[in-house]
Amino acid sequence: MTDLRRYAIIGTGAIGGYYGARLQQAGCEVHFLLRSDYAHVRRQGLVVESAAGDFTLTEVNAYADATQMPPVDVVILALKTTQNDLFPKLMPPLRAGGVVLTLQNGLGVDGRIAELLSGSVAPENILSGLCFICSNKVGPGHIRHLDYGKILLGAYSPDGGIRAATSVMKQIATDFQQAQVPIELTDDLLIARWRKLVWNIPYNGLSVVLNATTQEMMADEGVRSLIEDIMAEVVSTANAWGKKLTTDSEHRREIPTGFIEEMLSTTDQMRPYRTSMKIDWDEGRPLEIEAILGAPVRAAKEMGMAVPKMEMLYEQLCFLSRRR
Amino acid sequence: MTDLRRYAIIGTGAIGGYYGARLQQAGCEVHFLLRSDYAHVRRQGLVVESAAGDFTLTEVNAYADATQMPPVDVVILALKTTQNDLFPKLMPPLRAGGVVLTLQNGLGVDGRIAELLSGSVAPENILSGLCFICSNKVGPGHIRHLDYGKILLGAYSPDGGIRAATSVMKQIATDFQQAQVPIELTDDLLIARWRKLVWNIPYNGLSVVLNATTQEMMADEGVRSLIEDIMAEVVSTANAWGKKLTTDSEHRREIPTGFIEEMLSTTDQMRPYRTSMKIDWDEGRPLEIEAILGAPVRAAKEMGMAVPKMEMLYEQLCFLSRRR
Repeated sequence: MTDLRRYAIIGTGAIGGYYGARLQQAGCEVHFLLRSDYAHVRRQGLVVESAAGDFTLTEVNAYADATQMPPVDVVILALKTTQNDLFPKLMPPLRAGGVVLTLQNGLGVDGRIAELLSGSVAPENILSGLCFICSNKVGPGHIRHLDYGKILLGAYSPDGGIRAATSVMKQIATDFQQAQVPIELTDDLLIARWRKLVWNIPYNGLSVVLNATTQEMMADEGVRSLIEDIMAEVVSTANAWGKKLTTDSEHRREIPTGFIEEMLSTTDQMRPYRTSMKIDWDEGRPLEIEAILGAPVRAAKEMGMAVPKMEMLYEQLCFLSRRR
Repeated sequence: MTDLRRYAIIGTGAIGGYYGARLQQAGCEVHFLLRSDYAHVRRQGLVVESAAGDFTLTEVNAYADATQMPPVDVVILALKTTQNDLFPKLMPPLRAGGVVLTLQNGLGVDGRIAELLSGSVAPENILSGLCFICSNKVGPGHIRHLDYGKILLGAYSPDGGIRAATSVMKQIATDFQQAQVPIELTDDLLIARWRKLVWNIPYNGLSVVLNATTQEMMADEGVRSLIEDIMAEVVSTANAWGKKLTTDSEHRREIPTGFIEEMLSTTDQMRPYRTSMKIDWDEGRPLEIEAILGAPVRAAKEMGMAVPKMEMLYEQLCFLSRRR
């Protein structure tokens, strides 16, 4: 067993709360930054109902102010991307060799984090974890983990290049595995992000515009075919980008043909699911439109590619969001 | 002054009620078929609040049953296209030389009427009037005419060809002019229908999906650009169709380049407007999705043209409508 690292969780909600609690349960030292739930969690701890087993942490290192937090090895960023501009003020001190691990979806979010922390954290110390999880915060300090939970861990690369897993990444992976969180490493974070967008763009976007669950959408032949069309636009954009970045010595950086069919049939097998963007919408929170749709649409346009359905969905969401 | 013709109004709502009342006010003999408002109108007549002057018809030839109606010269069809299958049973007898004038929007609706009446009414006796009017039914036998009112009158042609105005059309035009309804004749009904669709497809469709008035949509830069993109798809489809039909001896059958800009600036100048499809949606009535979006999308596909945004709007509307 390796030494366990000291973690800070910035944003103790559905995602940060769940993974942070799992790490503490496994014996890691975890420090949680909270906002509205601070007093409650300090007094009552964290309650996790989970498909992988319920548990309660009665003693939690809770903070309302990041400047009070001790230096850590890993800062886990689990804010919504819409709050990223706040992040520099919420950043606790890092120990030597410390890293920032963002668990956010979307394109370019790691680049944005690197930019926000430039001067204090080197780009090679920024990691990304893509989370395949259904989890909600159902009350103060109360997380309900419904299904899945895997993390795909990769290193940020400013030029989008392949980056092999570092020893720090392997250590983090060990911590998560000991915490009952399945985790895999990838050397191609960019394509991994695009793969996740193949699901997120159509389902997150349409769930808000059509006010629908994944199941309702999949049961409708027309919307199913629309989802497939949008996925095809995302895959084309991803593969054009991947091709541009692929060097001669590398394997082809692309999303394979069968991936769309795989996503559709995975979704068919899911229980009726309210997407994270739909939950944000229902709760009156800002939507992660720019990270999930805006940046991919702009990426396509920069390459001169037409992505009419992604673009239309983006414009519809912007309208609904702005009007509110 | 020519002899005035005898009219039947099938569907005494916002459109049929307004035009029928205007014709009667001008001295035409008009017979109104009603459903839910029958008893009220028989007792109390029709009340028209109008931008062009309010008036009341205290005596109205009202019918609940088309078989009780006398033979007429002009049957004005003002049902929603979603009710067209009922039309043969609602068709009153025609006098010699009588015609059917449909006031419905959309592509292929005159062809559908010809089909439904085949054996009883010859295709050359089917006319179409495209109505540029803001009018609502606000209560039983109570029409509120807000703005505009012009009719563009053309003859149905089974092969989509040019058809010059007939003497019957000119007589009808005279009746409407005497009834304070501006009316113009067109020999190219097909392109006239497409021109109207350039407005109807984006505004009707998006007003339901985005739950918005024309003004709200025009004030949003992204939606405005989306509307423009959808209009461009409609114009391309129309012009491809027009080109296919144009014979050597004819002027070019197409929608000119400046038309989109003209539609946008006309809409900018309109008061905030709830589209007819949005009113249908708000009132829980079926939407005219097939006539307004389905048929144009299929027309594009038959010609091998990509109309991704029209298609996406169509699929979104079908989903919303089916779910309800």
